[in-house]
Amino acid sequence: MPDTIGFIGLGNLGRPIASNLLAGGFPLRIYNRSADKLAPFVEKGAMAASSPPAAAARGGIVISVVADDRALESVADDALAEALGPGGIHVSMSTILPATSEKLAAHHRQFGATYLAAPVFGRPEAAAARKLWICTSGDPAAKPRLQPIFDAIGQGVFDFGEAVGAANVVKLAGNFLIHAAIEALAETGAMSEKAGIPRAAVFNFLSQTLFNCPIYHNYSKKLTEATWNEVGFTLALALKDMGLVGQVAAGHQTPMPILNIIKDRLLTAMAKGRSGMDATAMAQGPAEDAGLAWGKR
Amino acid sequence: MPDTIGFIGLGNLGRPIASNLLAGGFPLRIYNRSADKLAPFVEKGAMAASSPPAAAARGGIVISVVADDRALESVADDALAEALGPGGIHVSMSTILPATSEKLAAHHRQFGATYLAAPVFGRPEAAAARKLWICTSGDPAAKPRLQPIFDAIGQGVFDFGEAVGAANVVKLAGNFLIHAAIEALAETGAMSEKAGIPRAAVFNFLSQTLFNCPIYHNYSKKLTEATWNEVGFTLALALKDMGLVGQVAAGHQTPMPILNIIKDRLLTAMAKGRSGMDATAMAQGPAEDAGLAWGKR
Amino acid sequence: MPDTIGFIGLGNLGRPIASNLLAGGFPLRIYNRSADKLAPFVEKGAMAASSPPAAAARGGIVISVVADDRALESVADDALAEALGPGGIHVSMSTILPATSEKLAAHHRQFGATYLAAPVFGRPEAAAARKLWICTSGDPAAKPRLQPIFDAIGQGVFDFGEAVGAANVVKLAGNFLIHAAIEALAETGAMSEKAGIPRAAVFNFLSQTLFNCPIYHNYSKKLTEATWNEVGFTLALALKDMGLVGQVAAGHQTPMPILNIIKDRLLTAMAKGRSGMDATAMAQGPAEDAGLAWGKR
Amino acid sequence: MPDTIGFIGLGNLGRPIASNLLAGGFPLRIYNRSADKLAPFVEKGAMAASSPPAAAARGGIVISVVADDRALESVADDALAEALGPGGIHVSMSTILPATSEKLAAHHRQFGATYLAAPVFGRPEAAAARKLWICTSGDPAAKPRLQPIFDAIGQGVFDFGEAVGAANVVKLAGNFLIHAAIEALAETGAMSEKAGIPRAAVFNFLSQTLFNCPIYHNYSKKLTEATWNEVGFTLALALKDMGLVGQVAAGHQTPMPILNIIKDRLLTAMAKGRSGMDATAMAQGPAEDAGLAWGKR
Repeated sequence: MPDTIGFIGLGNLGRPIASNLLAGGFPLRIYNRSADKLAPFVEKGAMAASSPPAAAARGGIVISVVADDRALESVADDALAEALGPGGIHVSMSTILPATSEKLAAHHRQFGATYLAAPVFGRPEAAAARKLWICTSGDPAAKPRLQPIFDAIGQGVFDFGEAVGAANVVKLAGNFLIHAAIEALAETGAMSEKAGIPRAAVFNFLSQTLFNCPIYHNYSKKLTEATWNEVGFTLALALKDMGLVGQVAAGHQTPMPILNIIKDRLLTAMAKGRSGMDATAMAQGPAEDAGLAWGKR
Repeated sequence: MPDTIGFIGLGNLGRPIASNLLAGGFPLRIYNRSADKLAPFVEKGAMAASSPPAAAARGGIVISVVADDRALESVADDALAEALGPGGIHVSMSTILPATSEKLAAHHRQFGATYLAAPVFGRPEAAAARKLWICTSGDPAAKPRLQPIFDAIGQGVFDFGEAVGAANVVKLAGNFLIHAAIEALAETGAMSEKAGIPRAAVFNFLSQTLFNCPIYHNYSKKLTEATWNEVGFTLALALKDMGLVGQVAAGHQTPMPILNIIKDRLLTAMAKGRSGMDATAMAQGPAEDAGLAWGKR
Repeated sequence: MPDTIGFIGLGNLGRPIASNLLAGGFPLRIYNRSADKLAPFVEKGAMAASSPPAAAARGGIVISVVADDRALESVADDALAEALGPGGIHVSMSTILPATSEKLAAHHRQFGATYLAAPVFGRPEAAAARKLWICTSGDPAAKPRLQPIFDAIGQGVFDFGEAVGAANVVKLAGNFLIHAAIEALAETGAMSEKAGIPRAAVFNFLSQTLFNCPIYHNYSKKLTEATWNEVGFTLALALKDMGLVGQVAAGHQTPMPILNIIKDRLLTAMAKGRSGMDATAMAQGPAEDAGLAWGKR
Repeated sequence: MPDTIGFIGLGNLGRPIASNLLAGGFPLRIYNRSADKLAPFVEKGAMAASSPPAAAARGGIVISVVADDRALESVADDALAEALGPGGIHVSMSTILPATSEKLAAHHRQFGATYLAAPVFGRPEAAAARKLWICTSGDPAAKPRLQPIFDAIGQGVFDFGEAVGAANVVKLAGNFLIHAAIEALAETGAMSEKAGIPRAAVFNFLSQTLFNCPIYHNYSKKLTEATWNEVGFTLALALKDMGLVGQVAAGHQTPMPILNIIKDRLLTAMAKGRSGMDATAMAQGPAEDAGLAWGKR
């Protein structure tokens, strides 16, 4: 039987990952900020931890899936790194700045532990279906031990080398590319509809042919149906992520004009009270700018 | 043996289409503005026509694949429509404004002939491999007769109804979406490289996973290798196409901010002497704006 | 008594110019497409002309103030140039493309006449107050003769040399700069109001200090009061003008990103049914994108 | 003789302000982070202080002119507020976030002291000529006592009410509007030059007529002469300021598309090694995007 894994963070993404680990035979010791989410996992055999370090075992593995840089820094403090100690590995799956990974990796190293960045791609449904894509970066020595874990939750791992922030950059790059596709589809749809062609017809054609891939499939459907109230990922979180992309880009003196457009769409959606809707509600922007209304509010 | 088809326009795209029609057993009567391109097709059994109407037979089919609206209007004059006459069909595969299709359809109708829009997606290599995607719009009665022809040159047909300009809009929408993907990839690559991660690694990951589709495959490769001098589609033509998208969008009062970015990238590339390069040379823009150099010039 | 001047075009701008010429002692022979606007000028002593060439005298001066390139080309035909003949001067005050001026100058030259570009800056009130600024370009030999005319209608003349389209470029450049100031003020005002500071206070300060000049005075006031229904210059005409700027810029491969923003604002305003409002109604865009409402509709 | 004033910060702007206060008969007790800048002021009669609180007198006035939010927070700590004590006033002239003013005002209040925001407009030459414009906000009771000081250094005071961050917002709004004018002029100049008209001629006309105000005068001259190496305000500082505007705007969910353009211009200039040049070097961007070169590097 494999060693017990510490698991921190039972949000929309953390829950299906934890479930799949349990289903895959990995014993878990689980921590979540609000303890009420622990019960269903304890029922399935997980142990509850009362604090992040209490989830860690000396020389063991801890996986964290928390909301943002600040949340990660608050769980990954001295106590956690010390509890992991020499040989211990912290696998950080959150979408955060590469600088945060660099800082935490140095900090863990002081206690002999290893911090690895391992952000994942996939909405909660994909996580539930063990279809996540996992990007890794950091100390190569620590990676082989994680393979069985990744096998239990995802469909593939891509490694981006030793610089620990690299996978975080790739995660942000991917999220940017996704939102760029949403904006481009939204503009395409607005133009098509004003020209008398239903966006469903245009999206259907394009996503079956030149753009026959998951992102265009999923978002074509979402934009066609205008189901902003079925929330996979909130608009407020998308704005947070795009803010991180902007910080990385500005830090490296790289203008990204499509990013500006995306951020402005999200700001407008926030200003119109849509922060809790699905991030794809940003697609209402190009429609409204053309005098159209997609979806209810 | 099928009826002889008139074929007008032996450019980069017209040539492989004509070859596939000949290979598929369709007798062709071919016209091209500069006659020197006719010879190889005559060798393969095509007949040469000395003018557009000379390529047409009464009640027959003519396919045109010409450079732009003006070129199409100059071949599709009274003489051509009259030569086609009642029952004749003009299949127009060029990338043009929907308004041009509407005008020509009305004009053909005066002579009893039918004008159909049938723009195609695919670079010349795809055309050679019979992998074109064909979008159609116009008089439904005329379409069934064209199916064997489309089968010989493409991998699928999508029909957008009776309004004859619809397929032209869809073609422009698709071209916009392609260039939006190029710009988004270029921004992603610039940001990644400045953050220390080769764009090849990022593009490789994304185009195998979330963006596992032809457009992202092809353009990721092109942007990684910076092979702007291997020209599939010139930058000047891309600017022409994006200008058409802009005309349609403005005509329908639809702002498309990503289109603005694309057009400005292409203008800058033109100003820097890159008009004859492949359209993907626009990806040098985000790189140069970040102080990077991709490819030679 | 000075020679009779031909005068073509009694629009919002043409009327006060013609009035000032009459008041300044210049006999006028006036043509307007719809003849009903002639009466008040005939009452003041002008002669009515039944066609553009009928307004011209051999070797005389004709001033035209028409809506756009097409209107100008329709009045400035062979008949007009021939009627002017050797020594005749056509002073064209419309906001048009430089290429149109070049074409018409060549055309007039064939008949021995001179075509000069002399676009003017100033809303109708400024024209009434003889406060126009006049930009000229074209054949230097013809200019001195016009000085008394310009003195009667404006507060100053700036000459841009022999290339006849130059003054048209300057007119377009100035109109662009005006709309850029409107957009910048509108964004400033939206941000300020959301931060709790009335835009009136911010505009008042800035237009009395760093930006103490007519454009910022006038438009600060307009944006503060949201008087879009008091129309000095329609939004539809502003879009036409910005389209001309875009044509000149694109023709010279010059990206102008602020122009893109302006055009998109105007398109959105058109899509929302504001084409007949004052052009400053574009300032509702930044406000609405921030969830604010300025002015009524 | 007036009370001694504490003065903190002898940067490019602080020095002329301090000189004018001394010239106006105000005794000063001066602190600067690097003490080597104190000597010339001590020679003119100022006293040197070894720390920020040492510059303050109980119930007295302290003026600070420091580089940014962080620098201000490091001088405006408990010790300074306590040294000022009841009746004491801290006049903060730095360009900072309104939130920083709010935080510091609350903090000073705990010690009975008053913090006022009083950011100023004017390059160092304007400060030397006592031509600053001063914006104030905060506790109304404290303002009358400052009038003689403001009279000694500026040409006018505009008050924005009791909310202490208001003047900071106005300062950021003004800086945004200035950079928007620079970008608009730069685009205008690039387009004009490509059309064959020297930007000097166009700028000269516009800044004498419609845009006859300090900002357009000064920056037209700067852009015409391309004197980026005569540095009034560095490009790096401009980017810092525009970042603050962006933070305020985003915090209030207000898209500002012209701000995006400005920030991207500045990022590109940074990426090309121009961070130490005058901020107006951003005007090279539109020129370079059009294939032009303005100024040397």
